[in-house]
Amino acid sequence: MALVQARVERALERALPAADHAPQRLHRALRYAVLGGGKRVRPMLAFAAGELAGAAPERLDAAACAVELVHAYSLVHDDLPCMDDDVLRRGKPTVHVEFDEATALLAGDALQSLAFEALAAGGLADDPAVQVEMLRMLAVASGTRGMAGGQAIDLAAVGASLTLPELEFMHILKTGALIRTAVALGARCGKPLARGEPDRLDRYAKCVGLAFQVVDDVLDAEAPTATLGKTAGKDAARGKPTYVSLLGVARAKALAQELRGEAHAALAGFGGRAARLGDLADFIVTREF
Amino acid sequence: MALVQARVERALERALPAADHAPQRLHRALRYAVLGGGKRVRPMLAFAAGELAGAAPERLDAAACAVELVHAYSLVHDDLPCMDDDVLRRGKPTVHVEFDEATALLAGDALQSLAFEALAAGGLADDPAVQVEMLRMLAVASGTRGMAGGQAIDLAAVGASLTLPELEFMHILKTGALIRTAVALGARCGKPLARGEPDRLDRYAKCVGLAFQVVDDVLDAEAPTATLGKTAGKDAARGKPTYVSLLGVARAKALAQELRGEAHAALAGFGGRAARLGDLADFIVTREF
Repeated sequence: MALVQARVERALERALPAADHAPQRLHRALRYAVLGGGKRVRPMLAFAAGELAGAAPERLDAAACAVELVHAYSLVHDDLPCMDDDVLRRGKPTVHVEFDEATALLAGDALQSLAFEALAAGGLADDPAVQVEMLRMLAVASGTRGMAGGQAIDLAAVGASLTLPELEFMHILKTGALIRTAVALGARCGKPLARGEPDRLDRYAKCVGLAFQVVDDVLDAEAPTATLGKTAGKDAARGKPTYVSLLGVARAKALAQELRGEAHAALAGFGGRAARLGDLADFIVTREF
Repeated sequence: MALVQARVERALERALPAADHAPQRLHRALRYAVLGGGKRVRPMLAFAAGELAGAAPERLDAAACAVELVHAYSLVHDDLPCMDDDVLRRGKPTVHVEFDEATALLAGDALQSLAFEALAAGGLADDPAVQVEMLRMLAVASGTRGMAGGQAIDLAAVGASLTLPELEFMHILKTGALIRTAVALGARCGKPLARGEPDRLDRYAKCVGLAFQVVDDVLDAEAPTATLGKTAGKDAARGKPTYVSLLGVARAKALAQELRGEAHAALAGFGGRAARLGDLADFIVTREF
């Protein structure tokens, strides 16, 4: 995992515009938002799925950068005063605090463009038609039937009460869609999978996506700010419905373990090719930040 | 032109998510931002370039939607309080006034995703590798070496004085990049152009892109708000360097005419195939809103 993280860091470094190229302030903000932090969960999932499909690492660099850049843009915009209004991210001041609101807005916008630029690099799939489909998947996962849609539901839910299925629907869009896409893009960088395998891989991705969010909610309730690198206890303070507010900590933790089991079950038929995906399911559920 | 505008309106209507699908408020904001307004200059350029290259109208719908959706997203974000803080756009309240800031932020984000989704629709070019390249072009034109970069320079220029080359550099990024991309994408929907033709088409696009901005500056100084559909006199009020502040109205108008002449000159070798592109150069320079 550490090797993949280091590799992704270098790939992101190359994908981002140099800080001394105009417009310098914007480029500095982009690099600040992306580099030197983050668990890189989505890139690791892309690499692990790519390994399962025998994909070349150079292709996986591009797919991993694309999903991480979308994720990074969403954090920059999320932290803005009109959204979550947060001042701390990855242990540092948020982008609009370190720079200014307008620069943070433009940096997020530009990171989204850069994600598509990364995924449109030449020769990412043997068949360019597959690459077009990969680009379409990233667009759908980022839009109103994915991340942005989930954010909108999240905003509307502040101070409201959601049922468990409503909460799940929100997270399937807000974090699940991009995590599924990370897995799917990694796999598509490689050789075509056998019949039924893409569906099983997607079932795995759905489970880890949801588990990721359940654990996030538990950590927000339990972990200290210093460990998280972002403001802890934020959900409860804002009156946001979470797995913890709906189920309590103990049942939320049990749900995360259940999803981990389902994720492993979905990988069963793949054998050793899916070892790293299995490790990642464990990491996502047992992480402490 | 009216026929193309009506056709593009229908294509945008289809590309946008239905207002009664969840998340409804976000979808309403997307439709509000895009439909029922705007000159549709970029779509018309895409259609005219596509006509020159013998492209099927169905493909041009997708290319036209993609550039217009990027343009629409940029307007929504530009109007936000942390940017230009404007309340009027296309004769209506801006998105953050009609909805709220968070919804406007997410709507802009989602419109950018939707632009890439539109351009990733199946079969937009005979060769899928060309379509991947089209997606890459749109990403570059939207990012820091295009629109977002131009916006950043524009922000930094408020209250500062720019030289004419600096002002031109800003506009080449801020509006020029997307206009050039509109022309290039339209052409790539069709048959491959002959040697040298893409370069001449791009010279045309550069000239109309710059002319568009010069005329925008003149209109901001001279036209009433009611005709513009957006707040007039804004540039001078904010101390923004413009072609009018640098050259005066008379010389700015002369520059627009000069660029119109250069645009027509670039089209000379195309004959009747470029008639509509020529008409659009005239429209862009002589428009009154």
